[in-house]
Amino acid sequence: MTKPLNVGLIGYGFMGRTHSNAYRKAPHFFDLPYEPVLKTVCGLEEDQAKAFAQKWGYESYTTNWKEVVEDDKIDIVDICVPNNVHAEIAIACAKAGKAICCEKPLALNVAQAQEMVDAVEAAGVPNLVSFNYRRVPAVTLAKQLIDEGRLGRIFHYRANFLQDWTISTDVPQGGDATWRLDVKAAGSGVTGDLLAHCIDTAMWHNGQIDAVCGMTETFVKERMHAETGKVESVGIDDACTFFCRFGNGSLGNFESTRYARGHKALYTFEINGEHASIAWDLHDLHRLSYFDHRDDSIVRGWRSVHVTDGDMPYMDKWWVPGLQIGYEHTFVHQVADFLEAMDKGETAGPTFRDALATQKVCEAVLTSAKTSQWQNITY
Amino acid sequence: MTKPLNVGLIGYGFMGRTHSNAYRKAPHFFDLPYEPVLKTVCGLEEDQAKAFAQKWGYESYTTNWKEVVEDDKIDIVDICVPNNVHAEIAIACAKAGKAICCEKPLALNVAQAQEMVDAVEAAGVPNLVSFNYRRVPAVTLAKQLIDEGRLGRIFHYRANFLQDWTISTDVPQGGDATWRLDVKAAGSGVTGDLLAHCIDTAMWHNGQIDAVCGMTETFVKERMHAETGKVESVGIDDACTFFCRFGNGSLGNFESTRYARGHKALYTFEINGEHASIAWDLHDLHRLSYFDHRDDSIVRGWRSVHVTDGDMPYMDKWWVPGLQIGYEHTFVHQVADFLEAMDKGETAGPTFRDALATQKVCEAVLTSAKTSQWQNITY
Amino acid sequence: MTKPLNVGLIGYGFMGRTHSNAYRKAPHFFDLPYEPVLKTVCGLEEDQAKAFAQKWGYESYTTNWKEVVEDDKIDIVDICVPNNVHAEIAIACAKAGKAICCEKPLALNVAQAQEMVDAVEAAGVPNLVSFNYRRVPAVTLAKQLIDEGRLGRIFHYRANFLQDWTISTDVPQGGDATWRLDVKAAGSGVTGDLLAHCIDTAMWHNGQIDAVCGMTETFVKERMHAETGKVESVGIDDACTFFCRFGNGSLGNFESTRYARGHKALYTFEINGEHASIAWDLHDLHRLSYFDHRDDSIVRGWRSVHVTDGDMPYMDKWWVPGLQIGYEHTFVHQVADFLEAMDKGETAGPTFRDALATQKVCEAVLTSAKTSQWQNITY
Amino acid sequence: MTKPLNVGLIGYGFMGRTHSNAYRKAPHFFDLPYEPVLKTVCGLEEDQAKAFAQKWGYESYTTNWKEVVEDDKIDIVDICVPNNVHAEIAIACAKAGKAICCEKPLALNVAQAQEMVDAVEAAGVPNLVSFNYRRVPAVTLAKQLIDEGRLGRIFHYRANFLQDWTISTDVPQGGDATWRLDVKAAGSGVTGDLLAHCIDTAMWHNGQIDAVCGMTETFVKERMHAETGKVESVGIDDACTFFCRFGNGSLGNFESTRYARGHKALYTFEINGEHASIAWDLHDLHRLSYFDHRDDSIVRGWRSVHVTDGDMPYMDKWWVPGLQIGYEHTFVHQVADFLEAMDKGETAGPTFRDALATQKVCEAVLTSAKTSQWQNITY
Repeated sequence: MTKPLNVGLIGYGFMGRTHSNAYRKAPHFFDLPYEPVLKTVCGLEEDQAKAFAQKWGYESYTTNWKEVVEDDKIDIVDICVPNNVHAEIAIACAKAGKAICCEKPLALNVAQAQEMVDAVEAAGVPNLVSFNYRRVPAVTLAKQLIDEGRLGRIFHYRANFLQDWTISTDVPQGGDATWRLDVKAAGSGVTGDLLAHCIDTAMWHNGQIDAVCGMTETFVKERMHAETGKVESVGIDDACTFFCRFGNGSLGNFESTRYARGHKALYTFEINGEHASIAWDLHDLHRLSYFDHRDDSIVRGWRSVHVTDGDMPYMDKWWVPGLQIGYEHTFVHQVADFLEAMDKGETAGPTFRDALATQKVCEAVLTSAKTSQWQNITY
Repeated sequence: MTKPLNVGLIGYGFMGRTHSNAYRKAPHFFDLPYEPVLKTVCGLEEDQAKAFAQKWGYESYTTNWKEVVEDDKIDIVDICVPNNVHAEIAIACAKAGKAICCEKPLALNVAQAQEMVDAVEAAGVPNLVSFNYRRVPAVTLAKQLIDEGRLGRIFHYRANFLQDWTISTDVPQGGDATWRLDVKAAGSGVTGDLLAHCIDTAMWHNGQIDAVCGMTETFVKERMHAETGKVESVGIDDACTFFCRFGNGSLGNFESTRYARGHKALYTFEINGEHASIAWDLHDLHRLSYFDHRDDSIVRGWRSVHVTDGDMPYMDKWWVPGLQIGYEHTFVHQVADFLEAMDKGETAGPTFRDALATQKVCEAVLTSAKTSQWQNITY
Repeated sequence: MTKPLNVGLIGYGFMGRTHSNAYRKAPHFFDLPYEPVLKTVCGLEEDQAKAFAQKWGYESYTTNWKEVVEDDKIDIVDICVPNNVHAEIAIACAKAGKAICCEKPLALNVAQAQEMVDAVEAAGVPNLVSFNYRRVPAVTLAKQLIDEGRLGRIFHYRANFLQDWTISTDVPQGGDATWRLDVKAAGSGVTGDLLAHCIDTAMWHNGQIDAVCGMTETFVKERMHAETGKVESVGIDDACTFFCRFGNGSLGNFESTRYARGHKALYTFEINGEHASIAWDLHDLHRLSYFDHRDDSIVRGWRSVHVTDGDMPYMDKWWVPGLQIGYEHTFVHQVADFLEAMDKGETAGPTFRDALATQKVCEAVLTSAKTSQWQNITY
Repeated sequence: MTKPLNVGLIGYGFMGRTHSNAYRKAPHFFDLPYEPVLKTVCGLEEDQAKAFAQKWGYESYTTNWKEVVEDDKIDIVDICVPNNVHAEIAIACAKAGKAICCEKPLALNVAQAQEMVDAVEAAGVPNLVSFNYRRVPAVTLAKQLIDEGRLGRIFHYRANFLQDWTISTDVPQGGDATWRLDVKAAGSGVTGDLLAHCIDTAMWHNGQIDAVCGMTETFVKERMHAETGKVESVGIDDACTFFCRFGNGSLGNFESTRYARGHKALYTFEINGEHASIAWDLHDLHRLSYFDHRDDSIVRGWRSVHVTDGDMPYMDKWWVPGLQIGYEHTFVHQVADFLEAMDKGETAGPTFRDALATQKVCEAVLTSAKTSQWQNITY
């Protein structure tokens, strides 16, 4: 029997929408052990919180997140606020015994992230960080192909996350829409926002990163702050490149920027193994490129796999071959996996601990960029 | 103020799911004049109807479609059953004053379609046929570009709809999953199922088709019937090709088959104009290819437009640039447009009358194939 | 030992260049039984013939093609003049016992082509028509894959040849550069110029075409004639579409136009078989697309084969994997194959007889377009 | 009037072929001030040198390169031997007053390269290093677009050169075919062989590289030596990644490997500017990808420019729009440019001095990889 699962959402911004949609949709497509009930939404502005609650069918709203955490009826808290408030809320949730879904990156830095891990592990609450791209079916399929050993020994892992939305010097920092440019709210620039995704997927696919060497740049040094109205120094990294060594002996090359004209959200990865290679691109997220050297040589080539058939990860839940799903479905898959694992007393990654590892890599990259030195990482 | 709109769904198969999902999602993303209420679902098997109602939150279920039509509380009937029962249900709905959304193709033949048009027009009820691909944002964008005159005089319209799911002789005809291969249920094969989509879009984009010349083939002549268990002659067209002349002087070339190995649902079109050309492909539905001869010659080339920005049709309702939507969203757009138009007393195409025109082209193509003669079409 | 082979070239235009280049290059890359010697070139304008001879190292030049045919030292005559003079020259060559390489299409019509075939077969001279695209390595590879049975039963053959260079009404007809628009010089428009290539390849790949049904259009009805300076009615077909039935039961769909904005010389074909499909595109002639349904389903997709490795047709003669060849190399392959076959007393296709078959299809298509009737073809 | 230019070729391997072909073809397509005469070829094995001379029409052959250098009739020496003998031969040529075309990379190291530069500059002889990819028309076009200012301020330059031919441990090192794996003959692995190309193009496009930080790896530590037959330690870098800062403030990211399964010779670059971006790929060398943010937003996208029209660099010399050229043509362009510049007393880059700059970057990258430290570069 399906049990109700009361959801408290904190943050009604872009991510609040994607998560709300996921809770609503998941039960129609997956056979879930729990039925999510949209109980309450919390946000800073009362009128916006109210409007959001109406739009999405939350039973109530509040502007005080502590009410959500202290509400006995709430089973799971979903944290969709800027990075600088993740830690406080999540730790309170853990103490209150709530299951937690937290947006990425987990924290502003490793120290915070460690506290959060300690809190959820001490409390023994189900916890998940929303590195949603793991659950693009093609990305999940890549994991499956690697685990099946199709690639053989892996030599290279390459990932990029390229955007172009901050090139204009008119884009402000801070505020609702552009808090990602304000180092106080975001902790870092592309490293925490974009590379964190690449790193999470990479370590899931290819194992632990042992050492990194990075470079960062801030192309636009000053921007108006949306809250103060004043031109202030920009503290985030506009671009970050790093290379690394994985524990399995393979080499990594990662790059992210918001100054790559022509790319909106071009998250790509490529993995080169002894026998086969894989490549993927968020701009065509329903395809996976695959090359297998074992094919007959005269018909050997990169295959473009249209990941829409029922034997592909998650795709038996959706439509028929040839008909693609999109960005939002990754969150539906996340909800489904989280709830199914929770019901079994298991863990659906990425957990807070997994996200701590990603945080360590991010921090090491930023330190390397500052010190011009390689950084070793211990987990 | 949002008014409730009570929905009665007839048919709980693949299309029943896509339409139910659309009614559920539309209010969360669009500001609609009506709030769809999933009132009742009707289907042949009681246990399946019940399960469907539970899954999707319909308040009730029935196995008798007449109950839906006669139910005073129902405002709109959504017809998602095989083609051979569209007419009877739709005509009853019209007489009962219901708004109607009917799956495509409208009918088994032109005579039936004409009766249906007469019925809805006599009753003055809102009516729409679910040629959903018009509402892929890239396809809508193509319409916009043509209407803006960017292409200039149009010379060619080319469309294909290629699949490969019936190549095996083991696929049966008839029954729940394969009624599309049974001429009694489907009326025709690829012509009504697939080319009807291409024709609907083409006439929307490029105006009326005046004359057609076609060829059909049935590659597998006999298949077991899923209901009788007997091997029976196959009455549908497995493949259909036709060329035509549009009213605007341009030439058309259309082809559909279920024997194109490697293509799952490859609906493509290309339009060549004096100044510019457009191409699109359902397998990457979030992109539109555009070529503009007026570009500087040294940087002139086909552009791949990633149709995800907020200034693209419908895309302000969804996510952010770079993040794609998929197949299901076309139905959400359809619900939104239908309800908005209904509220204004207007019509959101394609209406039954539009679908009658498509039916005329389909029938003319089949006649041409049988008689080996060009067929003129009058509307 | 390599024997000298004296070449007489008639026509110093675009094709004269490509053929001269091929004779010059072939011996450096292939081990040929003959060493082509550029003996004489013939063309209408003496100064141009002289300049061409100097540029390409022809020993002499003339403005009278009969001198070439009557010259005892000439072993092979290469005919690169407009279509309307192919027949007279080729028949004279045959009578003079010359080997003949003739540009395509073979003749203005079937009657002429038949005379030419009769002449070369009566004389027993080696003869070849320059349908060069057969010898793109990827196109030759397609033939190999079909002959190996990899595709299984073939259902569909589809080919297009799309250009956009005559859209402007300012392009004249007739004269040196635009004789292809003058029906008197060219015989037909896109049918003989472009579709002839598609038909030659198609029948080589997929066997005989039994019946055709076509449509043509002339979008620009009048153009200035470059020789007379007067505006004259345009007699060629600007666009031609036809479908057909092959002897093996498969369906064909062919289209050509010079009004497809954005396509310079987009010759494409796609072949759909029971087990596998193949696609190719002249704009990326060094690639072959291949889909094999027998691949594991989770990694099944269209493969893009980069046809540059040494085990691909002709490619052992060129560079190393990854490094592409281009358009001109098809003519080098043609020279090599023609000379090797000649040395063995064998025939390298397409012969005049093969080209006669193509001419029959072209003529049937044009007749069908005029009469609006299917045309059966006998060979 | 065209003057004869006597060519002496040293090295009859892969590069000897490409250069010989270029000297032969250039005069047929370009109007050159000199007519190259293939005078003599030199190589280690007499029978092979003789066979090569016959194949390509060299008037004589020798096994002693000093004979070539000392031959008064030779005007230009073309050096196509392994890297470890470039310096000695080139310096001797300079002293003998010969024009020099030398294969890349210029030398084994910076010290050698400096001596070579000193020698040619002291002698005042025309000198060119065969970084042939500059002369792919699409790559030259990229340079033109940058120089026209179309990109605006440049933020990123990214280049890869990926191959997969040494993954098998059975590939030997040393010897004729695999000297590139022997550090004594090659100087380095992918850095000098592949990245040198990327660096040459990058500094031509985007200016000087000021500082680099790199990482290298040798995946297969021991390989049999083809000459000794013994298993020996591998001294080359199998893979090399580096990032860098350009003098113009932009960031660079470069990677090369011979362990990227699925890539034969995938040299790619991408340049992101304020207004526009450019991308290119050697596997489809006849295309340039271009994105211009100034396009109307609804039709904005990456353009695939088919670089085959007559207004593209070099393309007026070849065929007609749509018909591609290939790898070998870059060498023809190089010969044409070198001879035209020589005639005017000018320099066609890349000169030995340009190649010295590339050598400095390569050496700095290797040093950085060894020391795990950034390296500044002075020119």
